[in-house]
Amino acid sequence: MKVKVGINGYGTIGKRVAHAVSKQDDMELVGVTKTKPDFGAYRAKELGIPVYAASPDFLTRFKKVGFEVAGTLEDLLEKVDVIVDATPGGMGAKNKELYEAHGVKAVFEGGEKASLVQASFVAQANYEAALGKDYVRVVSCNTTGLTRTLSAIQEYINYVYAVMIRRAADPDDIKRGPINAIQPSVKVPSHHGPDVQTILPINIETTAFVVPTTLMHVHSVMVELKKPLAREDVIDIFENTTRVLLFEEGRGFSSTAQLIEFARDLHREWNNLYEIAVWKESINVKGNRLFYIQAVHQESDVVPENIDAIRAMFELADKWESIKKTNRSLGILK
Amino acid sequence: MKVKVGINGYGTIGKRVAHAVSKQDDMELVGVTKTKPDFGAYRAKELGIPVYAASPDFLTRFKKVGFEVAGTLEDLLEKVDVIVDATPGGMGAKNKELYEAHGVKAVFEGGEKASLVQASFVAQANYEAALGKDYVRVVSCNTTGLTRTLSAIQEYINYVYAVMIRRAADPDDIKRGPINAIQPSVKVPSHHGPDVQTILPINIETTAFVVPTTLMHVHSVMVELKKPLAREDVIDIFENTTRVLLFEEGRGFSSTAQLIEFARDLHREWNNLYEIAVWKESINVKGNRLFYIQAVHQESDVVPENIDAIRAMFELADKWESIKKTNRSLGILK
Amino acid sequence: MKVKVGINGYGTIGKRVAHAVSKQDDMELVGVTKTKPDFGAYRAKELGIPVYAASPDFLTRFKKVGFEVAGTLEDLLEKVDVIVDATPGGMGAKNKELYEAHGVKAVFEGGEKASLVQASFVAQANYEAALGKDYVRVVSCNTTGLTRTLSAIQEYINYVYAVMIRRAADPDDIKRGPINAIQPSVKVPSHHGPDVQTILPINIETTAFVVPTTLMHVHSVMVELKKPLAREDVIDIFENTTRVLLFEEGRGFSSTAQLIEFARDLHREWNNLYEIAVWKESINVKGNRLFYIQAVHQESDVVPENIDAIRAMFELADKWESIKKTNRSLGILK
Amino acid sequence: MKVKVGINGYGTIGKRVAHAVSKQDDMELVGVTKTKPDFGAYRAKELGIPVYAASPDFLTRFKKVGFEVAGTLEDLLEKVDVIVDATPGGMGAKNKELYEAHGVKAVFEGGEKASLVQASFVAQANYEAALGKDYVRVVSCNTTGLTRTLSAIQEYINYVYAVMIRRAADPDDIKRGPINAIQPSVKVPSHHGPDVQTILPINIETTAFVVPTTLMHVHSVMVELKKPLAREDVIDIFENTTRVLLFEEGRGFSSTAQLIEFARDLHREWNNLYEIAVWKESINVKGNRLFYIQAVHQESDVVPENIDAIRAMFELADKWESIKKTNRSLGILK
Repeated sequence: MKVKVGINGYGTIGKRVAHAVSKQDDMELVGVTKTKPDFGAYRAKELGIPVYAASPDFLTRFKKVGFEVAGTLEDLLEKVDVIVDATPGGMGAKNKELYEAHGVKAVFEGGEKASLVQASFVAQANYEAALGKDYVRVVSCNTTGLTRTLSAIQEYINYVYAVMIRRAADPDDIKRGPINAIQPSVKVPSHHGPDVQTILPINIETTAFVVPTTLMHVHSVMVELKKPLAREDVIDIFENTTRVLLFEEGRGFSSTAQLIEFARDLHREWNNLYEIAVWKESINVKGNRLFYIQAVHQESDVVPENIDAIRAMFELADKWESIKKTNRSLGILK
Repeated sequence: MKVKVGINGYGTIGKRVAHAVSKQDDMELVGVTKTKPDFGAYRAKELGIPVYAASPDFLTRFKKVGFEVAGTLEDLLEKVDVIVDATPGGMGAKNKELYEAHGVKAVFEGGEKASLVQASFVAQANYEAALGKDYVRVVSCNTTGLTRTLSAIQEYINYVYAVMIRRAADPDDIKRGPINAIQPSVKVPSHHGPDVQTILPINIETTAFVVPTTLMHVHSVMVELKKPLAREDVIDIFENTTRVLLFEEGRGFSSTAQLIEFARDLHREWNNLYEIAVWKESINVKGNRLFYIQAVHQESDVVPENIDAIRAMFELADKWESIKKTNRSLGILK
Repeated sequence: MKVKVGINGYGTIGKRVAHAVSKQDDMELVGVTKTKPDFGAYRAKELGIPVYAASPDFLTRFKKVGFEVAGTLEDLLEKVDVIVDATPGGMGAKNKELYEAHGVKAVFEGGEKASLVQASFVAQANYEAALGKDYVRVVSCNTTGLTRTLSAIQEYINYVYAVMIRRAADPDDIKRGPINAIQPSVKVPSHHGPDVQTILPINIETTAFVVPTTLMHVHSVMVELKKPLAREDVIDIFENTTRVLLFEEGRGFSSTAQLIEFARDLHREWNNLYEIAVWKESINVKGNRLFYIQAVHQESDVVPENIDAIRAMFELADKWESIKKTNRSLGILK
Repeated sequence: MKVKVGINGYGTIGKRVAHAVSKQDDMELVGVTKTKPDFGAYRAKELGIPVYAASPDFLTRFKKVGFEVAGTLEDLLEKVDVIVDATPGGMGAKNKELYEAHGVKAVFEGGEKASLVQASFVAQANYEAALGKDYVRVVSCNTTGLTRTLSAIQEYINYVYAVMIRRAADPDDIKRGPINAIQPSVKVPSHHGPDVQTILPINIETTAFVVPTTLMHVHSVMVELKKPLAREDVIDIFENTTRVLLFEEGRGFSSTAQLIEFARDLHREWNNLYEIAVWKESINVKGNRLFYIQAVHQESDVVPENIDAIRAMFELADKWESIKKTNRSLGILK
């Protein structure tokens, strides 16, 4: 029997999770919601995915252009076991009551607060925390990125300081700037450190900056080590860490642009780079400090986490069985 | 018997043409050349494509990192019937002698001069011109884009004035600017008009500007009509023109970013948008002037032309048979 | 006796007009309004300019940080002969009633409709239209730019087609995108043509595009001539046209960035380039068509127009007396 | 008697230093060199500054357009006591021999190696080191920025880790990208730490990234304290540190764009922001770690250092006398 999955919000994350769900043999994609009949809605229909209005308020928008919807969010909730809430940050909190009323489990995304759910989640770090739970939060792209690499070296960590250089807007978001400026989060440390701590019990502080690019976030990570660790050990650990890939500037990976080109060369759907990209040359240990630089594809790195979260919530598989299954289905390299 | 194809220059255009060749049942991809062992070279090897050094001078680069090449360009030329020269603009002219010496036909790209070849080429406009020829030039992305739509309304054209707003660099090219400026080609009219005239005998003038974006070129086209043509007629004509698609702002296509998102949603390899994108709402006729706005995906619109050019040069198919075959193999929508 | 001037909205345009007013011997800057106590408000105070709250609603914002205001907009209106409404587009229409109630004349900016006022205005084109008027609209930066050069060659114009490549945001506006896309105005022709016609009775159509830059707009202008005009004549005319400057790519002016650098080199306040910049090499006549490319500094080109509009409204000077006075006071080169 | 100063390279830095020299009562600007007669050269001439060809090789360029030069670099060297070498990075090393041959002192910029000179220099940190010296290097904009704030808290520093988010190109440099990517320096730590150590004997490591903006660099600084220091103390120290200014996000300084707007509002020449801008809200102490974020105007922060370096080399004034004199002449706020 397959878990019936609905997606509330068929946008950047929602459409990718929908696609990933459709690749799983233990899940069934029941439908998705849209707020308006844009080309994303037409694409869903072309793919044979039932489209629901995200709210009855939006029905007239669809009617006006003759786009037939399968019902509204509440109709979809009647048909699913779990809803993935991929609505804009903060809306999930408002939607939760509705999910509870319909008795469906819910996966929330990183724009929601940790206090909304029973567990915050990054599969390779704390899969078990989501086992059997009803409300789970897949943490943000940045937090997922930090957690993936830091959990791999957790036992060596005394303290982490990470600087996040964030892309200002997603590629298809033309409303947001800045066009030509660097914008710091002046609240230092930023909220990203505490967010990592909802998963990993480590001492971490972060600062964050927004810059005019759409492709990926980049993190400059510095770790104070509590015990010796050589550069080669770190390389070895990361090479054996799932959903983390090493890239060499020597092979032409000199910026986030070439990382995305790599995903394009693989013919990955939407050039998804599910894996966290660590520049191999950047890994360095000086005294008791480890440095490395990583890049995070904000559109896709959390997609496999959503799949694994569902599996954990329905206890469909144990941690590594789920991770491997998800990886295989999405073409994740390791 | 399949035509044996080699690609000289496995970059933005070369890798896409190689992929397209591999999808044809009447062609065989024999090998590609690279100047250095970057991730593109490794990707080719992963795909099982033999990699040749673009020149003996580059052999040491490959040897240094232990990348085994299948030989050099001259070795590749011994094995192919036709070479697609996807080297940087102007280098094709230098390479031609070598191709002649090896007795292979050659397809050149838009960076070369029309005088280098026997025919400049856009399949739907002048397929026949390339029949049986040895040296054919697929014109530039911009010229191809103009030719596709203008050839469809050619009989109505008295004069064309097109303004080209050009992307400054391809997505993986991080060396070129400008970061924050608009750069005109102050030579007015620009060279694009005469280049269209190598294919279409129309009266056309153009101006060109470079702007800080990587996604697509955009053309603002104004046509002085020699006989009446209604807005609806133009829509009808473009809807029936191969490799031209109409997009509606009303469905969310408000910039080049959403056009690329459309190609990503289709899971097109490298988000290729082989088709010229015309904004439906922009098509307008005022008096004897027709206006429309179109966008050109500089990385991919010429790819099908390369395939058709090869077919014409070897007389493998007639015009529409070739175009349909190419379209079907690449998932071109119409 | 000096005309008492108030500025409603001390932002990009407002602060420049305030500065320009302070340079005139026949005007007195009485005060400016702000909606909040940001660094612009502190700067005004430092300069000794009385700051008024743009509305009583905003008073608490100022009180909270201990910023003393001189009153509210209505207090300012009691003290002035004319108010320059430099509020965001469309707000002027709402403010007009208030100005009427206080019996003050008002200059509006290009974000307002022509129907709001008695005359739309570009000094060198129709100074007389504003003589003695109470409500005058200085047209937008783009319309001003087109009008300056087109009015100089008006007698030769049969038809104008201009393509406007617009900067997406002002340099200090970090909220607006796009970061990496070209966004057309799909309504073709765009509203800019009719706006020029509020000043000049010429046949003109335009299309418009937004691109990711903050510095200047660029216009590609094509004019169908009604009588012969040689390239040299156009150069000669523009060289003798006030508030129009010719720039040569040959001297390094290859983009809008160098035009701004020119203004910086002059130590112009805010690098204002009040003059419309025409690329000399771009001026060309082919048959009965004239082409040229010009750039418009959206932050400042309308500033002298505001000053001249005030002079006309109070009949302080005739056209050329006013223009010369304004030019001299602002360091406009010719 | 005034020190006679020449500037070799009248570009971004050179023209600003020339302007600054012209404001000093103990210096005389003798001339500047240019490699070609671009608008910068014409501007110098307009300002009455003698222009010399940077090399005899360039004389024909000037002759061709009828631009009269006052001679070549060697002629200029005959007339000056000191030359400021503002040529592109690495060229200074080649020029030094010529300066020695002519017996003139030389100030080099941050693109040169520390080993080229007798002292690397940031006025407030080590003015005395340059006293009477012949060859002094004003360190790079980034190093100057770090040194200004770190020297003020030097006694509290146990260790510094700074992440540099660098502007990719200067505003008038349209050749360099990236347009839409983040580019790390994968050599970690980067060279900036050791460069600070040429001035300050502190333990410092850095990483660096290039992002698509032209306005300013931004530094995320983390300091491990060797003795307690409260947030308020740091604010107090920075408020009393010359050439460092605190900016509040609460007043609208939310990005580098508003910092530049601040300089424009001051009508600073070229919107120079000679002072290092520290975001007040970003200053924070957590345990034994101090955090702060600062921005550096790469075009101008080193300009006052060049002036002070000359004064030290000729022993015209002691440290604070020189700093105050320079500050006053350039309108530096404190």
